[in-house]
Amino acid sequence: MKILVINPNISESVSALIQTEAQRSASPDTEIEVATAPFGVAYIETRFEALVGAYASACVAAERHGSYDGVVIAAFGDPGLQGIKELIDVPVVGLTESSLLTAAALGQRFSIIAISPRIKAWYRETVERSHLASRLASIRALDEPLRDIGSVQQDHATKLKALCSQVVDDDGADVIIIAGAPLAGLAREIRNELPVPVVDGVSSAVTQLESLIRLGPKKATKGSFAQPPIKPNLGLPEPLERLLSSGQTH
Amino acid sequence: MKILVINPNISESVSALIQTEAQRSASPDTEIEVATAPFGVAYIETRFEALVGAYASACVAAERHGSYDGVVIAAFGDPGLQGIKELIDVPVVGLTESSLLTAAALGQRFSIIAISPRIKAWYRETVERSHLASRLASIRALDEPLRDIGSVQQDHATKLKALCSQVVDDDGADVIIIAGAPLAGLAREIRNELPVPVVDGVSSAVTQLESLIRLGPKKATKGSFAQPPIKPNLGLPEPLERLLSSGQTH
Amino acid sequence: MKILVINPNISESVSALIQTEAQRSASPDTEIEVATAPFGVAYIETRFEALVGAYASACVAAERHGSYDGVVIAAFGDPGLQGIKELIDVPVVGLTESSLLTAAALGQRFSIIAISPRIKAWYRETVERSHLASRLASIRALDEPLRDIGSVQQDHATKLKALCSQVVDDDGADVIIIAGAPLAGLAREIRNELPVPVVDGVSSAVTQLESLIRLGPKKATKGSFAQPPIKPNLGLPEPLERLLSSGQTH
Amino acid sequence: MKILVINPNISESVSALIQTEAQRSASPDTEIEVATAPFGVAYIETRFEALVGAYASACVAAERHGSYDGVVIAAFGDPGLQGIKELIDVPVVGLTESSLLTAAALGQRFSIIAISPRIKAWYRETVERSHLASRLASIRALDEPLRDIGSVQQDHATKLKALCSQVVDDDGADVIIIAGAPLAGLAREIRNELPVPVVDGVSSAVTQLESLIRLGPKKATKGSFAQPPIKPNLGLPEPLERLLSSGQTH
Amino acid sequence: MKILVINPNISESVSALIQTEAQRSASPDTEIEVATAPFGVAYIETRFEALVGAYASACVAAERHGSYDGVVIAAFGDPGLQGIKELIDVPVVGLTESSLLTAAALGQRFSIIAISPRIKAWYRETVERSHLASRLASIRALDEPLRDIGSVQQDHATKLKALCSQVVDDDGADVIIIAGAPLAGLAREIRNELPVPVVDGVSSAVTQLESLIRLGPKKATKGSFAQPPIKPNLGLPEPLERLLSSGQTH
Amino acid sequence: MKILVINPNISESVSALIQTEAQRSASPDTEIEVATAPFGVAYIETRFEALVGAYASACVAAERHGSYDGVVIAAFGDPGLQGIKELIDVPVVGLTESSLLTAAALGQRFSIIAISPRIKAWYRETVERSHLASRLASIRALDEPLRDIGSVQQDHATKLKALCSQVVDDDGADVIIIAGAPLAGLAREIRNELPVPVVDGVSSAVTQLESLIRLGPKKATKGSFAQPPIKPNLGLPEPLERLLSSGQTH
Repeated sequence: MKILVINPNISESVSALIQTEAQRSASPDTEIEVATAPFGVAYIETRFEALVGAYASACVAAERHGSYDGVVIAAFGDPGLQGIKELIDVPVVGLTESSLLTAAALGQRFSIIAISPRIKAWYRETVERSHLASRLASIRALDEPLRDIGSVQQDHATKLKALCSQVVDDDGADVIIIAGAPLAGLAREIRNELPVPVVDGVSSAVTQLESLIRLGPKKATKGSFAQPPIKPNLGLPEPLERLLSSGQTH
Repeated sequence: MKILVINPNISESVSALIQTEAQRSASPDTEIEVATAPFGVAYIETRFEALVGAYASACVAAERHGSYDGVVIAAFGDPGLQGIKELIDVPVVGLTESSLLTAAALGQRFSIIAISPRIKAWYRETVERSHLASRLASIRALDEPLRDIGSVQQDHATKLKALCSQVVDDDGADVIIIAGAPLAGLAREIRNELPVPVVDGVSSAVTQLESLIRLGPKKATKGSFAQPPIKPNLGLPEPLERLLSSGQTH
Repeated sequence: MKILVINPNISESVSALIQTEAQRSASPDTEIEVATAPFGVAYIETRFEALVGAYASACVAAERHGSYDGVVIAAFGDPGLQGIKELIDVPVVGLTESSLLTAAALGQRFSIIAISPRIKAWYRETVERSHLASRLASIRALDEPLRDIGSVQQDHATKLKALCSQVVDDDGADVIIIAGAPLAGLAREIRNELPVPVVDGVSSAVTQLESLIRLGPKKATKGSFAQPPIKPNLGLPEPLERLLSSGQTH
Repeated sequence: MKILVINPNISESVSALIQTEAQRSASPDTEIEVATAPFGVAYIETRFEALVGAYASACVAAERHGSYDGVVIAAFGDPGLQGIKELIDVPVVGLTESSLLTAAALGQRFSIIAISPRIKAWYRETVERSHLASRLASIRALDEPLRDIGSVQQDHATKLKALCSQVVDDDGADVIIIAGAPLAGLAREIRNELPVPVVDGVSSAVTQLESLIRLGPKKATKGSFAQPPIKPNLGLPEPLERLLSSGQTH
Repeated sequence: MKILVINPNISESVSALIQTEAQRSASPDTEIEVATAPFGVAYIETRFEALVGAYASACVAAERHGSYDGVVIAAFGDPGLQGIKELIDVPVVGLTESSLLTAAALGQRFSIIAISPRIKAWYRETVERSHLASRLASIRALDEPLRDIGSVQQDHATKLKALCSQVVDDDGADVIIIAGAPLAGLAREIRNELPVPVVDGVSSAVTQLESLIRLGPKKATKGSFAQPPIKPNLGLPEPLERLLSSGQTH
Repeated sequence: MKILVINPNISESVSALIQTEAQRSASPDTEIEVATAPFGVAYIETRFEALVGAYASACVAAERHGSYDGVVIAAFGDPGLQGIKELIDVPVVGLTESSLLTAAALGQRFSIIAISPRIKAWYRETVERSHLASRLASIRALDEPLRDIGSVQQDHATKLKALCSQVVDDDGADVIIIAGAPLAGLAREIRNELPVPVVDGVSSAVTQLESLIRLGPKKATKGSFAQPPIKPNLGLPEPLERLLSSGQTH
């Protein structure tokens, strides 16, 4: 099977981190293709940046439609995830949603470790969209400027581990979610040093997407995840327009 | 004061309905400018269509930045509203949010009358984003194909009034919200025939925005509605890029 | 238009603060009349005191019925608000409800700054009545005895500003609500020193009420905000009795 | 022990029903005194009527303070209950709260049978105040005019039993709450004809109050149920004023 | 009346504490019989231990069926409570459920004092099962190893009182619940030293059960608390099998 | 890898259905072993039956401990799931939890199709335990007696498909969960006839468990999913006792 992993941001260094962790997590016979957003910002921390990343991700998913069996939206916060699920006829997953579902299978309450204070509101709202906020023990974040989005893990390793300890000891987390594509792979490296299971967004998304593809769910033709009804449109990139024109007759 | 009303869709006929109702609702000294999205779909019913309308609305708001004292995102479902609030330094409101807040002041439970069954999921999720879903008595919708998005009110007048009666008699609504820009102005016409207050998105948004502008709230420089932190970006329309470059130093 | 602002408490000094801020917030052509409760306590901190203020406010609203276009219940906690909405045929707003709705338009999470620890429980329950408790970041309060209810702002200025900073930095508030009629006008004075929008109950209530009056919502004749059904009553002040006798036939 | 049962309404016929059921439910050594509100309406269906009943009940409780070991507020909807709990130094219970707690011990989900459609909103909000709304299966009500509030049980016996069957068969209720003082005693009469436990407000309140009195909980001197802090007051009935002056020094 | 109190654990020393407090709380004419689980662990702190205690309690309740008028499941966390309510034809109560209902009658928000940190998750989930988690101010626990489960009260008296003060002063509790059978009776001893009402599980359960027995609710024959439908079973203790065979025909 | 699938009930015919669907869903290199509960009832519909199935499942999981890489609790309602997660040092999943998580990845709202009306309460409470009840569109059930638990699918095929249509058309489900081990495999057979994705408990559980095993989460040594603290126990089956004695020192 072939999986398209879309980095909704423009950072090639983060795409490389995603690629490495995705490859390590995937089954041997799964082909991983990582695509970096052609427009947008370096990394998403806010609702506005997510709005841009959502549109960019949709454009990429449409452009490559037909070449994959499933899609990963590879930014925490899942920009555009629900909309892209409507548009595309194969399974689509996101880092937050996948992390939450993995964490929900491993414990009752979970905490999120994030890369900046600003990002916390956007993450909280993403968890609320999944209706799992009452199982969120806490969100804790690095609070220093990031020198380089591609080396956050190395630059802040000690502090990140300290945050992990705090959410277990002080906040009552059963599971730790290490959030954000810039931290992809960190969970794998430090999991043996931590007293509870640690969840990584990329590996959760890839393994869950493989499971979904194997289960072979039908694309909805009714309900709110069917394709948008066919109607006039204007000024859209050709691949988006083509997908919309294959939608539902109202 | 000057208000920019953005129709996140490409339908000029709907922009005309919005313009009329906005003008009738505004104070005499308020200048209303309606802008139609330069790209997108005819009207928004789904999460994907909202994703497109969000980006289109953000582009319009950025492009005209500096020429207005406040912005109305004039599609029910408020595409991009929270992100655009971050970006822009004057008040921004949306039809759903404004309708919900007006309804919340007039009663405890409200129902929404919508133009298609498909739109119901997107509306419910918009209400959930406001954390007011537990005050939502019901969403009822027309269930026939729409001949013309510009004449829904005329084409379906009887059925729309019947839906209004049902939400009061059967669902326990204290207030009726007539949802969607294509129905702008309908509330004004039929309110005397209905036994409870009827809320219209456009007039709620315009009057609330006028109130907010008069209250003169400061643009946040901290918290989750400050401008996005300055960081590298790529391939964005120049007005967006310019606004982002005026943001917060991380 | 003419607005009746009811101070549900007996403190004339607080009525004066309310009068000043109401006047400053109102449109030039709005007439403001402030009425002080003829019986009750100096200021409301508890459910019992609210119970008394509710009845006092209802008596005042009934007594002056016919002389106003809308009513503000001018104590935080909104004593009697929902009941008085049933009784009266023009819009009625309260300081908490209006503050919450203004805050909800300006951000996602808000905190309340209050004048005493005891008042926090009553405020929390008022927010719960609006179903917005999940957007409440925190309530923080002065914790020293109040020398004079009319000069709380002056006496505790430094501490009040410190509380405002804490709710932004520690609790994640996007918006600050400065609560309670004794603090009326404080938001206006300190808003430029604070990093997020600050909401004042009196100005929110007055501007929202003006908007509602302009929208001209019909008095409900069905549903739970119609007038109470006509039935025997006994021992009520004549104005209350007269209004009740104009109610709905069951 | 001696229990004061306050009918927050002016209907002596309803007081008689309450008296009978309270007596039948009480332990042999419990003395029951029923007091009818000296002012108010015939029966409470709305928030406004509850506001009046709350003040009337508080006046009665204050007037007879010292003569009882506990108080029952004997109208469904519990007018003034939480405020009166603050004021009084012995346990105070209400028909709704007691019914909900009894029902919560007997099953997971419960339905309420009520005497009029108008009353449903007020009941729902009372359940919400207890945070038990998510265990409320339904509220069903008589929908015909009431000839005589003292003979509702006899006049509508068949319909009331039909409603009881519907909430079990259609709404999934584990327990039926027969609501409202005018229906006091009905549960006792029809319980053998119904397939699930039936809860009566008066008997629940009396037995729970007896239990509370036996447990002998201390009156709070801290927290939100301590007496209101001492402060200036004006125009209150002497018994209220006397109780307030025995309150907490701030 | 005769009440069977089941200690779901194997600790005879805890059974003795339960017996003493149950006897002191019961009416003079109530006979108390305490039964210790024939298998299980010394005290329940986790979901797994509760699973064992649930089965053990069910076995005891079945074995002695016919000899009692009501059952108390005497471990905080209520192991098996809802299942045993289905099985048994007389009222069944548990320490947590009873404590929550007593606390709910005495105040709006309550805190729980527990004997170990590990126990907190299980208690929180028990409160969630009652849908009262939004009224839970906090759970605070001893955090030192327990020398002897039968003497926790004596060994940790000072610390337990300190925790009680913290939940009032820092967490906003109106009521304190002292949780767990090993603390049975402590509330009675220290209640006069604390500023808010203190609730004990055993005395709450016994007095509420007496009330329920006096109210005489019918055993459900429909709904989710009727006996399990008759169907094949295998390998169950004879008393369980006998009770199941008296159940509902599907 | 080797997966132990525990049927918490005594029905060998249902174990056979489970075996078939588990095998079809598993990866080629996964070994499936199905174990039938040695004691209990034919199928679980109620809380009491779940209590028995929980203990039986725990006994089986303990007895075979060491021989598997993960466990499926193969009854809808997940009897004992959370407790067994504490006890066992490899991943444990349940049919309901896995179905909910799969459904959550495929849509926003889901409905459950069940085999009997009685089972609905237990299923609802299981969904509540996952905090996903607000995404539950409905539970619909067969309402006729079951001739044979092993042939429910065949005996009620038409009705089951009709229920599936109703939850989409009337209840707004985006995804259908066909619940209960007796229906294992039905989703696979009818999914092409239905307009939205259909989720099967057994295949969801097996594929998710495979994913979890591949992710290799560490067994918690802190938090609420660590093994129960070591303490005295009595009368437990030897395998349970052995596992408990390997637990955490308090």
